[in-house]
Amino acid sequence: MSNSFSFRVLASDGAARLGEIAMPRGTIRTPAFMPVGTQATVKGMYPDQVRATGADIVLANTYHLMLRPGAERIANLGGLHRFMNWERPILTDSGGFQVMSLANLRKVDERGVHFRSHIDGSAYDLTPERAIEIQGLLGSDIQMQLDECVRLPAPRAEIERAMHLSLRWAERCKTAFEANPRGQALFGIVQGGDDPDLRIASAQALVEIGFPGYAVGGLAVGEPQEVMLRMIETVAPVLPHERPRYLMGVGTPDDILEAASRGIDMFDCVMPTRNGRHGLAFTRFGPINLKNARHADDPRPLDEASDCPAARDYSRAYLHHLVKANEMLASMLLTAVNLSYYQTLTAGIRDAIARGRLADFRAETREGWAAGDIPPL
Amino acid sequence: MSNSFSFRVLASDGAARLGEIAMPRGTIRTPAFMPVGTQATVKGMYPDQVRATGADIVLANTYHLMLRPGAERIANLGGLHRFMNWERPILTDSGGFQVMSLANLRKVDERGVHFRSHIDGSAYDLTPERAIEIQGLLGSDIQMQLDECVRLPAPRAEIERAMHLSLRWAERCKTAFEANPRGQALFGIVQGGDDPDLRIASAQALVEIGFPGYAVGGLAVGEPQEVMLRMIETVAPVLPHERPRYLMGVGTPDDILEAASRGIDMFDCVMPTRNGRHGLAFTRFGPINLKNARHADDPRPLDEASDCPAARDYSRAYLHHLVKANEMLASMLLTAVNLSYYQTLTAGIRDAIARGRLADFRAETREGWAAGDIPPL
Repeated sequence: MSNSFSFRVLASDGAARLGEIAMPRGTIRTPAFMPVGTQATVKGMYPDQVRATGADIVLANTYHLMLRPGAERIANLGGLHRFMNWERPILTDSGGFQVMSLANLRKVDERGVHFRSHIDGSAYDLTPERAIEIQGLLGSDIQMQLDECVRLPAPRAEIERAMHLSLRWAERCKTAFEANPRGQALFGIVQGGDDPDLRIASAQALVEIGFPGYAVGGLAVGEPQEVMLRMIETVAPVLPHERPRYLMGVGTPDDILEAASRGIDMFDCVMPTRNGRHGLAFTRFGPINLKNARHADDPRPLDEASDCPAARDYSRAYLHHLVKANEMLASMLLTAVNLSYYQTLTAGIRDAIARGRLADFRAETREGWAAGDIPPL
Repeated sequence: MSNSFSFRVLASDGAARLGEIAMPRGTIRTPAFMPVGTQATVKGMYPDQVRATGADIVLANTYHLMLRPGAERIANLGGLHRFMNWERPILTDSGGFQVMSLANLRKVDERGVHFRSHIDGSAYDLTPERAIEIQGLLGSDIQMQLDECVRLPAPRAEIERAMHLSLRWAERCKTAFEANPRGQALFGIVQGGDDPDLRIASAQALVEIGFPGYAVGGLAVGEPQEVMLRMIETVAPVLPHERPRYLMGVGTPDDILEAASRGIDMFDCVMPTRNGRHGLAFTRFGPINLKNARHADDPRPLDEASDCPAARDYSRAYLHHLVKANEMLASMLLTAVNLSYYQTLTAGIRDAIARGRLADFRAETREGWAAGDIPPL
């Protein structure tokens, strides 16, 4: 189930863990935030810039890459790392989640998911075996089982059906991965919606099957934050201490702070990149909307104490102008600001766990957000 | 007419000149290509990246900046250099050309041009005096007189009328600049369409008025290249040897090679940036259209001998994918490739002039373009 993959918990603070995943392409410091590089690029960022923000690993989306440019093509070109000029670890999802949200005429049966491409309408079958094959062709380091994720709220029977199907697919993915392991590790995914009993049953069954890491899927799909956190509190104790836990698709800075405090080790989310493209900056003062006219004459940078050049070397007035003028540089700078802030936040969480002061760090961080942006003089 | 501005011709080869413009913010090596930063940003490029391609100076557009964010606002923020985080020289146009091509309900009379913003319809008057005032507020180093540029082909009487109006505006601009010189130099602009006699009359009258540099305007507006080159050959001998000559809005790599050979010292053009955003790369093998499906499986970089990382570190297959997927990184990388190529070309021209081998350089460069892109193995 794992090729060359190891995880160590270096320190704990309450339920939170400081850790390290070691793989041939590099070490991942946890809790880790993984920037999303959907189509083999973190939108608006050069790969070396992504690394400079502090990212140890990026995520790429199987669904998008299987459609365009195609997994076999990327394999022939030497794999995804070479293709996108990123030498460090890559995690790929299984494609299942995005089939549900993006593809046309999708259908789920025991065999897998069947859909038509949103790009050109051509038909695809994504089985557990094919999901593993594609991720192997891409050559990603951490690969994910195919699962079925149900949007919340949903009837319990529907959540339960999808959870059991996901478990059967977990077994099939493991079998396929072990037959021809072309990544470093395959993670299982806990499903079960907002039902604690189903979550526990899913986690127990996955641990029974045995994976080098466990994801918590099907959250941040419409439910309130407190439901998400309760599910994490429910699932974490069932998962083995010595395996990393990955909360898929989460979240706001506050979500990350809270989930890490409850024992989550890995995160990915489009929020910093997507919001950056829409004029929103995440900072230690909370979110700042650069579209707002109050920035038009403000000579101050977003955060002069930041070590991110984009946050430090450009005035709010300039950023506001770029956003209003719909300039690419607005998206580039604000994406860089946001990814830097997410990495600064997870680095702060790691440091706080190491020092046993996570409660203080949470309080200080929330205080900064609550104080809000400094008004202009 | 000039504050702290000097130009030296260091070497000649035929009509071509190697030179140097010295100003407080930096030296401009000529023949020089100036990337266009229309809205106070070279689209898709960080300022330090623009510099890394070899640019000594960038151009910004008065028309766009007077509308948004406004010249007074930029002045209050410390000027255009600080605003856009570019410390080296900036040249601004007068706004006249873009009023003609972009604004609504435009009207020209003796006093100036009157128009409505293409953004919000508000009314503006752009007189010669206001054009100088705006450029002073922006704080650009090289400023341009207001002129009226006529699209070709046009009746001779129309070209002549606009040329004489531009001369009267040249005088008014000079008077306004000298009353309150807030840049390093004001350039006059030769008009006269495709009529050699009008071109000569315009150039002579401008030299009579006296400027530290002379632009040739109203070319590359629809006429064949040979007409443009004939106009340069007509005008150059009339202009003083010891003043820089700027061919506005030109052009293709071939236009630059030919015009520099005829004594032009400065160029600006949106071609490298705009074409980069549309999937076209300029290289020493000629233009390469990355949209073309033949690149889909090509592992080679655009030019492995380039010192531009964007041309060297990414495969054509990846660039093709990014273009097809409409990813920002496609525009970012291809803009960088193109600006680097334009700077490499002008650096090659400078080197060839210094060595008295411009004819050989032209032949070699054209041979490279004619040979075309190397087909995949």
